[in-house]
Amino acid sequence: MGCLARDPHPLLVELLHAPQLSGAKVTLPYLLAVDAAHVVMLTRQRLLPRRVGAELLRVNRELLGELRRGEAVIDPPASHRGLYMLYEQAFIDRLGPSGGAAHLARSRNDIGATLARMRLRDELLVLGQELVALLGSGLCLASAHVHTAMAGFTHLQPAQPSTLGHYLAGVLDELLRGAEWLDVSYEHVDACPMGAGAGLGTSLDIDRELVAGLLGFSRIAENATDAVVSRDYAIQVLAAAAAVGTTLSRLAQDLQTWSSAAYGFLGWPDDLVSTSSIMPQKRNVFVWESVRGRASAPAGALVALLMTLKGLPFANSVDGGGESTAPMWPALEALRTAVRLSCTLLERVEVARHRMLTFLADSKATMTALADHLVAAEGLAFRQAHEAVGRWVARGGDVAPPTASADSLSTAIEEVTGEPRTLAPQLLRTILDPQRAIDAARYGGGPAHSTTRRQLRGLERRVAGLDGRLRQRVGSQKKATRLLAEAIEAVSAPGVEAAS
Amino acid sequence: MGCLARDPHPLLVELLHAPQLSGAKVTLPYLLAVDAAHVVMLTRQRLLPRRVGAELLRVNRELLGELRRGEAVIDPPASHRGLYMLYEQAFIDRLGPSGGAAHLARSRNDIGATLARMRLRDELLVLGQELVALLGSGLCLASAHVHTAMAGFTHLQPAQPSTLGHYLAGVLDELLRGAEWLDVSYEHVDACPMGAGAGLGTSLDIDRELVAGLLGFSRIAENATDAVVSRDYAIQVLAAAAAVGTTLSRLAQDLQTWSSAAYGFLGWPDDLVSTSSIMPQKRNVFVWESVRGRASAPAGALVALLMTLKGLPFANSVDGGGESTAPMWPALEALRTAVRLSCTLLERVEVARHRMLTFLADSKATMTALADHLVAAEGLAFRQAHEAVGRWVARGGDVAPPTASADSLSTAIEEVTGEPRTLAPQLLRTILDPQRAIDAARYGGGPAHSTTRRQLRGLERRVAGLDGRLRQRVGSQKKATRLLAEAIEAVSAPGVEAAS
Amino acid sequence: MGCLARDPHPLLVELLHAPQLSGAKVTLPYLLAVDAAHVVMLTRQRLLPRRVGAELLRVNRELLGELRRGEAVIDPPASHRGLYMLYEQAFIDRLGPSGGAAHLARSRNDIGATLARMRLRDELLVLGQELVALLGSGLCLASAHVHTAMAGFTHLQPAQPSTLGHYLAGVLDELLRGAEWLDVSYEHVDACPMGAGAGLGTSLDIDRELVAGLLGFSRIAENATDAVVSRDYAIQVLAAAAAVGTTLSRLAQDLQTWSSAAYGFLGWPDDLVSTSSIMPQKRNVFVWESVRGRASAPAGALVALLMTLKGLPFANSVDGGGESTAPMWPALEALRTAVRLSCTLLERVEVARHRMLTFLADSKATMTALADHLVAAEGLAFRQAHEAVGRWVARGGDVAPPTASADSLSTAIEEVTGEPRTLAPQLLRTILDPQRAIDAARYGGGPAHSTTRRQLRGLERRVAGLDGRLRQRVGSQKKATRLLAEAIEAVSAPGVEAAS
Amino acid sequence: MGCLARDPHPLLVELLHAPQLSGAKVTLPYLLAVDAAHVVMLTRQRLLPRRVGAELLRVNRELLGELRRGEAVIDPPASHRGLYMLYEQAFIDRLGPSGGAAHLARSRNDIGATLARMRLRDELLVLGQELVALLGSGLCLASAHVHTAMAGFTHLQPAQPSTLGHYLAGVLDELLRGAEWLDVSYEHVDACPMGAGAGLGTSLDIDRELVAGLLGFSRIAENATDAVVSRDYAIQVLAAAAAVGTTLSRLAQDLQTWSSAAYGFLGWPDDLVSTSSIMPQKRNVFVWESVRGRASAPAGALVALLMTLKGLPFANSVDGGGESTAPMWPALEALRTAVRLSCTLLERVEVARHRMLTFLADSKATMTALADHLVAAEGLAFRQAHEAVGRWVARGGDVAPPTASADSLSTAIEEVTGEPRTLAPQLLRTILDPQRAIDAARYGGGPAHSTTRRQLRGLERRVAGLDGRLRQRVGSQKKATRLLAEAIEAVSAPGVEAAS
Repeated sequence: MGCLARDPHPLLVELLHAPQLSGAKVTLPYLLAVDAAHVVMLTRQRLLPRRVGAELLRVNRELLGELRRGEAVIDPPASHRGLYMLYEQAFIDRLGPSGGAAHLARSRNDIGATLARMRLRDELLVLGQELVALLGSGLCLASAHVHTAMAGFTHLQPAQPSTLGHYLAGVLDELLRGAEWLDVSYEHVDACPMGAGAGLGTSLDIDRELVAGLLGFSRIAENATDAVVSRDYAIQVLAAAAAVGTTLSRLAQDLQTWSSAAYGFLGWPDDLVSTSSIMPQKRNVFVWESVRGRASAPAGALVALLMTLKGLPFANSVDGGGESTAPMWPALEALRTAVRLSCTLLERVEVARHRMLTFLADSKATMTALADHLVAAEGLAFRQAHEAVGRWVARGGDVAPPTASADSLSTAIEEVTGEPRTLAPQLLRTILDPQRAIDAARYGGGPAHSTTRRQLRGLERRVAGLDGRLRQRVGSQKKATRLLAEAIEAVSAPGVEAAS
Repeated sequence: MGCLARDPHPLLVELLHAPQLSGAKVTLPYLLAVDAAHVVMLTRQRLLPRRVGAELLRVNRELLGELRRGEAVIDPPASHRGLYMLYEQAFIDRLGPSGGAAHLARSRNDIGATLARMRLRDELLVLGQELVALLGSGLCLASAHVHTAMAGFTHLQPAQPSTLGHYLAGVLDELLRGAEWLDVSYEHVDACPMGAGAGLGTSLDIDRELVAGLLGFSRIAENATDAVVSRDYAIQVLAAAAAVGTTLSRLAQDLQTWSSAAYGFLGWPDDLVSTSSIMPQKRNVFVWESVRGRASAPAGALVALLMTLKGLPFANSVDGGGESTAPMWPALEALRTAVRLSCTLLERVEVARHRMLTFLADSKATMTALADHLVAAEGLAFRQAHEAVGRWVARGGDVAPPTASADSLSTAIEEVTGEPRTLAPQLLRTILDPQRAIDAARYGGGPAHSTTRRQLRGLERRVAGLDGRLRQRVGSQKKATRLLAEAIEAVSAPGVEAAS
Repeated sequence: MGCLARDPHPLLVELLHAPQLSGAKVTLPYLLAVDAAHVVMLTRQRLLPRRVGAELLRVNRELLGELRRGEAVIDPPASHRGLYMLYEQAFIDRLGPSGGAAHLARSRNDIGATLARMRLRDELLVLGQELVALLGSGLCLASAHVHTAMAGFTHLQPAQPSTLGHYLAGVLDELLRGAEWLDVSYEHVDACPMGAGAGLGTSLDIDRELVAGLLGFSRIAENATDAVVSRDYAIQVLAAAAAVGTTLSRLAQDLQTWSSAAYGFLGWPDDLVSTSSIMPQKRNVFVWESVRGRASAPAGALVALLMTLKGLPFANSVDGGGESTAPMWPALEALRTAVRLSCTLLERVEVARHRMLTFLADSKATMTALADHLVAAEGLAFRQAHEAVGRWVARGGDVAPPTASADSLSTAIEEVTGEPRTLAPQLLRTILDPQRAIDAARYGGGPAHSTTRRQLRGLERRVAGLDGRLRQRVGSQKKATRLLAEAIEAVSAPGVEAAS
Repeated sequence: MGCLARDPHPLLVELLHAPQLSGAKVTLPYLLAVDAAHVVMLTRQRLLPRRVGAELLRVNRELLGELRRGEAVIDPPASHRGLYMLYEQAFIDRLGPSGGAAHLARSRNDIGATLARMRLRDELLVLGQELVALLGSGLCLASAHVHTAMAGFTHLQPAQPSTLGHYLAGVLDELLRGAEWLDVSYEHVDACPMGAGAGLGTSLDIDRELVAGLLGFSRIAENATDAVVSRDYAIQVLAAAAAVGTTLSRLAQDLQTWSSAAYGFLGWPDDLVSTSSIMPQKRNVFVWESVRGRASAPAGALVALLMTLKGLPFANSVDGGGESTAPMWPALEALRTAVRLSCTLLERVEVARHRMLTFLADSKATMTALADHLVAAEGLAFRQAHEAVGRWVARGGDVAPPTASADSLSTAIEEVTGEPRTLAPQLLRTILDPQRAIDAARYGGGPAHSTTRRQLRGLERRVAGLDGRLRQRVGSQKKATRLLAEAIEAVSAPGVEAAS
């Protein structure tokens, strides 16, 4: 080929060129679109004779048709230089030399950079929609449980009374931020490199905006070198995916824990658990483990990406191109799997309200409420109140009969402040009632149902906004596909040129 | 303390509590501000008697004064439970029991979460300003070299003619996107957790917006659990920092390469290079190595963070709190060092225009221009033109005398197309002139000076925008500091209470 | 300095050179030893006049003395080129020009490479000893609990009966492998780079083995470039540390879970738990969270190291040297903290045998034993037995009164095999008894106490072996220190030269 | 299935169970071997009737035959629970209920753990052999170039004279250590989990050593929980792979740099370079970029593994099992590709000795030799000699005519020491001759050819040792395969049982 007198070494064909073909089914539809948009533009700019452009576009649509019918459009010889050269050869085979006329003011570099962004856009839209579905299921579940009392935990120990709805609202807020971040990252992806050629532009008077528009991009990647070289958008996407994965791993951890025998708060129907191949009694909530495992994938891919890009020249290279983003695709798919599984698990969860309530009642989770009362009604400094209640609990004061209980509290207070204060046993019981404490926790983003509901409404609005943005992006893509089809038609239609 | 009958084990003091004190100088100013804002709010909400609030604030300002004068405000006993408890003790020592009155509707959890965000905001502002300075130096250098011809590279080999300015414009575009991403991450940091308590809110009627405002936050972190637990903002910050680090490592790689003896394109004055302790002739451009090394730090810290957060319960924990973000601080400092060093290196670089031009002239970098000409003027399909020029170059046709050169090119064309085409030797020379090719590369974001200038103007506008946002953020912080001082004053002033 | 006409730029001093001084206290003792060994060797090889050698060694010992007395041996001027040049200057200040005579056949490169390995050897020995202590505590605890019945878990659900001792034996096996791996990594560290100079050797007839021996190395790093450049030993060390960290994070996860209120299997005394600043009832087993958090540090440092080394020239560079290993030191310290905390937690754990037993009895964990019985005594194929027992459990057959229970089991068997089999109720009860199942699980590395004891004895032997190797290494270091002192003495003693 | 009344949810089938089948071709041969060894053992231990054992083994061999002929042995229904259950079903389909008889004293847990180790052993052997080939090519190249002079570099600048052979010897030493580490990691992999069941052993009197031996393992994984849970061997393997990858990335970086136009030291024939699709003159040494890119894969997989394992219970789980090691397989394949490409590149490299020599001659790389001479022959302290030579070089003294050169050197010496020393011009020229300096650098692991040859011989011995160990391991595998075949035969042969 050109300045090279020999075919590539068989090892290169085996290890580098041939493996590209396994991805052809994913890549070729994008490549056909890019090629078509470029030829349309070259023709309109009169850089390519209209007749040649029309022929190229005809073969382009032929190949697209064959591809859609599942036919093999690429028939690799023993030796070749990878998918792109074979693709071009298919045109030459059908059209003769003019099959190689389209490679003007373009390069494998800008084409490769464009294909990666187009594929990633589609991945992000699908992932985004799955996340919206998960957020929807989560919000629905949270809304259904704003009154479902459970212990709130810190350091794995019961801390203060809460609700399942409040817990979920917290997790969903973080999850939504991750989804929104992924959506913002779409905008980083959405710049078209076409026209940058090898990374140094061209002297031919091309129309980059036209190509970008026909491919559904909202803008061009201006500097030719940056257009071809940059993969910072992939860092952004994978970091956002890693953040989403982190949230899911924590959610999975908690919900599996709460479905374990020791807690028994949650359960799932038979079709979402597994048994053991050896232990007949087992009902394993193993799907959360898959969620947790898959959700770790983006972090690994992010490191692979950063490692690969590190220290590369800011110029086109193989490792800075397709090799750097190769681990991204399976990682995004793994995350998508985690999202879809989580969605179904949230939809089908069975909540054991009674066990949650019993656990809460036994948990001493209202001692802060008691300390707060001693501050508000009895004028203790908080640290004194905390000290007194702490001593009282340590002595088991809270599990004694009502009067003895109130007395021993008074003693503890006296030890700390020098002055006894005896609460009426009935009042003490009321203060220590978890349900009352939940209702009272209206401030500071606490679990009172009104507070949680308000937060959930805010989340719903944001999810709706995200959903709207995703729909708009999908719409833009569809519109671009239509525009491209029309533009191809226009080039091919005999009468149009004269008119234009 | 409270329910615990014993002091902490000496090992906990040695390994966990005491080491917190080494960070006291950084932490205490933030803690004093948080405490003051909280006490102001408690007083205004009448959750704390005005007299007690005023006393607490008086001690707060005393401690701040002592801290500023470099005095040791914390005097740790042999056994203690870490910085916060010692801090509170300092109030109790000076005020008696009412020194412990402020810990109402708050917890070490929300305080810790708030301190981390406040510190990070400041780090981001300083880092942002250094990045603006670096971008400024880079744009200045790029503008000065939009005409400085050099080979553009791909795969380390000369590819097509370019300019130093065009190269820099590409790198700076990616760098600016990283800086803008860091700036967007500021908004994720900028939500105030105060009021969330241990992560489950409070029954006390607090005013979270007031506290947030006095601390310069633009909003509150709504859900109490999310407020205390989430560190997704740190993922965002470190990912953006890793992206900036990646760009710097690539810039460093290129510029050090170009200053090596084999290239000799760039140099730096004596005060920015080092010699060897053993090799007297050495002038090592080692600073780019430090840039490259430090720029790798954020990626490591990001992994440490993701690793630490992975699978944690979505509830307060030690590792999900301060331990998870501990590696972030040195990593951001390392990145800042890389940015500052890069800025000075770009300001002081010496460009060897002549060597760059000589290298370019010898580099066959205009062969694409020749192929393009054969398409445009001679009607070859691009792939044919490429093939013919490739053969001609492989045979050394381009280094022959003018006429022989034109003849051998014609032969190569004939081999490929079946038809000879002889270009006038003078025309051939013109086509192969690198400077002409640079001037012509006006399209596709290429290196023609007008194209580069246009891009640089766009970058300048964006840098100015970023600078403006940073200044606004700094201004907001200063305003909040003033508001807090006034609010403290208002609580302490004898006449105000009556009036309010 | 030499070919450079100017002092370093203030920014380099601030950001690169001056910060080296903060580590002087750690570095200087190693540097003094390296310097002394090198000067002894130069003198013996007659590359340095004996008189000069003796003077240099005298100052070396002076500086060591001052350092030990806590005096500042380095007094940095405003501008300097880092710790090493200041160190050499201290000799020149005291001896005149001959203070600079030692830098023969050496370079900052081989010195720096040697210092890192010496420091790392010491770190590994200390870490190794802490690990031996932890393994000792763990084995002691495991031995004490080979009879302590508890549920064995899979997927967080009770699986089959086990013992606390069996669980610990499993974890300790993995932990010991990690400790052994760290010990093997010591041998990778233990090669001396001295003599390699800048990485290209020397024409001076030096004795590398002598220097290596005086510094306690067991061999030299042969190739000069490899000696100076390689940091693969650090990859090995940090990977082993990450493996140890992984094991600790899993142990921490389990033991904290089992100490949570829902399990209540384990507890710790008051001096190893914390309470909350706000919730008076809290007894947080937070130390395991610190263990888990610190144990994640090596993984982050490993990534930082790999990232930094990636793609560097195989030649000396700043980022390939000290900067690449900088994150290793705090990460190893974090891991050491995790090890020490774990050791104390294992020593002081309080085991609630009764709660563990009650939980086990309620857990249906003997259903596999029942299925095994149906195979062995009743001739069912295992899959049939599993199916039948599974159905029986799902219908609550196991919680019915004895006879009904046996009957319903028979029914389930009939459904699966077509033939009923009724077990005697007493036999059925015996089969389902967890304690019996533990005693029977003697095979496949199961929890029968004899099996666990045998495994523990094996672990004890291996820990003793590891301990022995560590003691030997410590001994070798001490011996080398003695040899170096004697060699210094010999150079300085007036009569020896004549004699030698 | 058993206690579960419903088929798995379609989503679980789609996302978790069905995808397992795509790996069946890789997994099934291992599974058939494991199954066969287990059944042989059960039969010998009389835990399974001989007749049943023989039937199971017959189907086992049938399936193996079908698999080898490329037939589909698994025909998945619409709903199923993954590869293992389908595999067992194939036996039940052919044998009736006794098809499910083999699942005694085993579980998917120990089987899965065993399959992963078996596959990894094979991967390590293949990778090891490729590494031995690469080391062989490298040593061959190094031996051929122990006299090929080139500049040795530090900080990308020429430092001292060296040879290509010396450079390669250094890299190969590190590479060999990595290969040896991978080989040591094989021993960590080589322990058989079979018999551990679900991780809690069994009450059935099995013979674990027999199964281990029939599967070619050198020992059993003793503790049942450890056997099923531990993946520390994968950390070890991936860390060693990451170390090898790091070395390759550095080698790739250097060799590609030296083949760039500015250096021109190295080249490759046409079948190992590529041209550009757009730039006809291009001869891109792009394969080193693929090497560098692929060589980064193990680091990413290592992070994914550590991330996944972090904080998991030390008990069987889905994410702690197959999901944790899933990223390991493609990463090891990527590394293998990098190794194979590197091997061919080293075999086919073309060395431009003349350009390397010219570059060296212009590089001032012998200034250290001059300083050394001033110490040895003129009695200067090294720091003085360094200073004087440095000044002389900075003034261009070394490029002046001989006598002027010697004079200006004398002046520089006088400035530093107060005393002039004039070297004979001829002597000065000799000292500065690079070839002489290379010959002299016999010490400290320098580039003198005798020194390099000695080191290469050492490396050759170690490579031969590694090769021998690999061959032995391959031999052990083959022997085990034979033993298993014989054991199957023995169970099936009618007369043997009576005899045994």
